[in-house]
Amino acid sequence: MAPPIIRLGLIGCGTVGSAFAEQLLAREPMLARRLGARLHLAGVAVRDTRRKRPVPQTFVTDDAAAIASDPDIDVVVEASGAPQASDWLRTALGRGASVVTASKQAVARTPALLERLVRRDQRLWCEGAVAAGVPVVRALRESLAGEEVHAIRGVLNGTSTFLLSRLETGSTLDLALAEARSLGYAEADPSADLDGSDAAAKLAILCTVAWRIPVTADLVTVTGIDGVLPVAREGGWRLVATATRDGDHVCARVAPERLAPRDPLAAAYGVINVVEVRAALAGALTWSGAGAGGAATASALVGDTLAAARQALHRLRARAAA
Amino acid sequence: MAPPIIRLGLIGCGTVGSAFAEQLLAREPMLARRLGARLHLAGVAVRDTRRKRPVPQTFVTDDAAAIASDPDIDVVVEASGAPQASDWLRTALGRGASVVTASKQAVARTPALLERLVRRDQRLWCEGAVAAGVPVVRALRESLAGEEVHAIRGVLNGTSTFLLSRLETGSTLDLALAEARSLGYAEADPSADLDGSDAAAKLAILCTVAWRIPVTADLVTVTGIDGVLPVAREGGWRLVATATRDGDHVCARVAPERLAPRDPLAAAYGVINVVEVRAALAGALTWSGAGAGGAATASALVGDTLAAARQALHRLRARAAA
Repeated sequence: MAPPIIRLGLIGCGTVGSAFAEQLLAREPMLARRLGARLHLAGVAVRDTRRKRPVPQTFVTDDAAAIASDPDIDVVVEASGAPQASDWLRTALGRGASVVTASKQAVARTPALLERLVRRDQRLWCEGAVAAGVPVVRALRESLAGEEVHAIRGVLNGTSTFLLSRLETGSTLDLALAEARSLGYAEADPSADLDGSDAAAKLAILCTVAWRIPVTADLVTVTGIDGVLPVAREGGWRLVATATRDGDHVCARVAPERLAPRDPLAAAYGVINVVEVRAALAGALTWSGAGAGGAATASALVGDTLAAARQALHRLRARAAA
Repeated sequence: MAPPIIRLGLIGCGTVGSAFAEQLLAREPMLARRLGARLHLAGVAVRDTRRKRPVPQTFVTDDAAAIASDPDIDVVVEASGAPQASDWLRTALGRGASVVTASKQAVARTPALLERLVRRDQRLWCEGAVAAGVPVVRALRESLAGEEVHAIRGVLNGTSTFLLSRLETGSTLDLALAEARSLGYAEADPSADLDGSDAAAKLAILCTVAWRIPVTADLVTVTGIDGVLPVAREGGWRLVATATRDGDHVCARVAPERLAPRDPLAAAYGVINVVEVRAALAGALTWSGAGAGGAATASALVGDTLAAARQALHRLRARAAA
């Protein structure tokens, strides 16, 4: 019997999307063995169809909404970060598809998506939206599912860490920004990184998963790094995301902090993110790893795609059995 | 409709088992909500039935094999570390139950159990067997399921780290050992901790999950900490587990190493374990947290019990539908 086929649609083929597509195409046989089904990249939506992509040209469209609503696509992988991402994700979920997303703002600003995280919907996966390949969302969602989480702290924005650590060692802001851009760590417009709203969206997702309470990004109190740029040479300054819970109330904020050298979060340098979770039984757990970059984010997308595809496979089999 | 009931059997009610039982009994309503089924502790097997336990006396038996083979028990949680643990786990799995275990030696020395880890058997869960509550087994099993793992390094034995770090700060071996025992971090006979065989079993499990190749503990080359005790005051000495893969061959060893202060593994102190995984896309990821102690290990057992119970619930529903 031929193995079943899970059809994937990819929305967005920039740094992250192309890293994902390349890996998927390169590793398809291995992934197929692990999944027990073939993964077929059935469509890729991009903004500019004329640009060269690491996917066969025939797959490419500029109509992301068509990928989201295509009933033949079982799993939609969204890596565009576009303002419409939230709509596409809801369209795909609404017709019964599974989705994988790296778009933190889309998730953290859409109550309907946060609600799905609260109830551990097996069709919504967003590891890549927080700390790229550092598997902290899945840990909160599954490993710590029976735990009581007391607090979450993290250095979640690679760009601001990169800039603050470069300023620490004597660089200027302009030089450091140019370097971050050339390494693919900063957007053309880095304001969401520097004003804390990127970290706030990530923190909102972590809070929602940890506490099963929908926490939208606008509930996070935010202070950007602007005010500490003049003193960054002192060293130890990081943009820190912190959250605690008091009953049904989550208190979450993002602000620059000067960390003590022994603070586990002080290990965040360059694009390395660090997350610390304090739980009743496990005590303090920390994760660290690259929190930005195409490959690191693609790592999370590949892991989530396997989970989403597994779920899609269950649906296919249930339909075949019915 | 009354919620379904998943019946648990606990084998072993020492430091870890009692921490687990206490949590289970205290948090049952919350866990039931999260699972969509009640968790009922139907039996507890202990060595000495006369000792006081944090479970109602009626549940207690000294017949672990009976718990393993009881067809009414859906999930067997094994926290005894007894030499017969491997038999009990195989008995329970053989009759179709799910199992959760904290016994590294039972898993790492039993090819039939390692084979189940290789194929991601949803009925065998062993997070608590490696680094207690640090969720690295689940990450390798699921988050990194589509990744290519290049290398694993870890400080996986809390007792030897505790001793080496105490010697570093001027304690004597006898004093440090007594302290470790009084904190519940060392067994009456700590030889498996000090000779590296405890870390070897943990490393074997990580290798098996990461590379989907059964790696038994006896394939790990082991050197204990004896030889470095006289120089431990130098500082930086840790018992380090290291593994790499070359095709189908896994090269795994445990040996004392003097770590550079900037090595992420150097953050291991007291009972804190640190694990570093290098993967093709994610790059270097590190985890750290308490690698020993009743509560930390119970954290992993509770998380795994939810996963195992979810699987048991699927079986119950499939049986009801058939």
